This record gives sequence, structure tokens and C-alpha cells, in this order.
Amino acid sequence: MKVRVYVMPKDGLLDPQGQAINIALINMGFAEVKKVRQGKVIELELEETDKILIKNRVEDMCQKLLANSVIESFHVEDI
Amino acid sequence: MKVRVYVMPKDGLLDPQGQAINIALINMGFAEVKKVRQGKVIELELEETDKILIKNRVEDMCQKLLANSVIESFHVEDI
Repeated sequence: MKVRVYVMPKDGLLDPQGQAINIALINMGFAEVKKVRQGKVIELELEETDKILIKNRVEDMCQKLLANSVIESFHVEDI
Repeated sequence: MKVRVYVMPKDGLLDPQGQAINIALINMGFAEVKKVRQGKVIELELEETDKILIKNRVEDMCQKLLANSVIESFHVEDI
């Protein structure tokens, strides 16, 4: 089974990559851009089919490795 | 209006970040992990409401700045 994990900087925290993209897009003529935030997406292929078990295991992976819970939030989706 | 852009390494191309995560997860005891790929997600807030116009403009942004079309594929979703 495949899942997708989204890891985004928490709202209100500085996101220098997002700001850099924002400035670059405006300088390139995309004046309609108001705000940009950049995060990570991690696609996992797992040898497991039990959805509830997978949810718990992937949340455990996020807390231990994939996301820094001090500055990032995550959510998990099936694909 | 808000859109989300996903930028992933193309299938078949090397993804060292994904491989590093894969190895780390297995070493941490998540033996069910078979494959990992890591990409970027970019959330854009736009001063524009016409969905067709936005789709064209955001694809233009992807081609010019957000994705490297030689090695990455992208897709755009409304949120």
C-alpha cells in the first residue's frame, strides 16, 4: 500500500524557502502571488495492507524521523 | 484562492533523499517500508479567482521556476 505524508512549516513560523519563491515569482511578473509556503511530500510504499495499523506506524515514523514537531506539522493520506 | 503544487522526482531517476529516508526507517525498525520518494509541496495564495486562468498561470510558474522539468514532474491541485 502507498501513503503520502505532507510536512509543512507551522503557521506563523518563518519559512525562508517560501519567501524566496514568493519574491522570485513576483520579480518574474507573477504579481498575483500573495503568499508562498514550501513543505515536503514523502511517498511511502509499504508491505502492509491493514489501514489502521499503517496509520499508526506512519504517524510514528513522522514523529521519530520525517517531521520536526517543534516547527513542522504533518498529515498522512492514502494514495 | 489557494493552490498546492506537488513536485516529485521523475520515476526511474535517482532520489537520494528518498533512499536516505528509506534506509533510516528500516534501521529504526520500520521493516515494512519498501520504497520512499521525496518531493516538494508548494502552497500558493493568489489574488485571483478565475480557475482556468490560475491553472495556466501556475503551470507557467512551475515550468519557469518551481520544477525542473528535466528531472521532476509536477501537478497542481486546488485547496
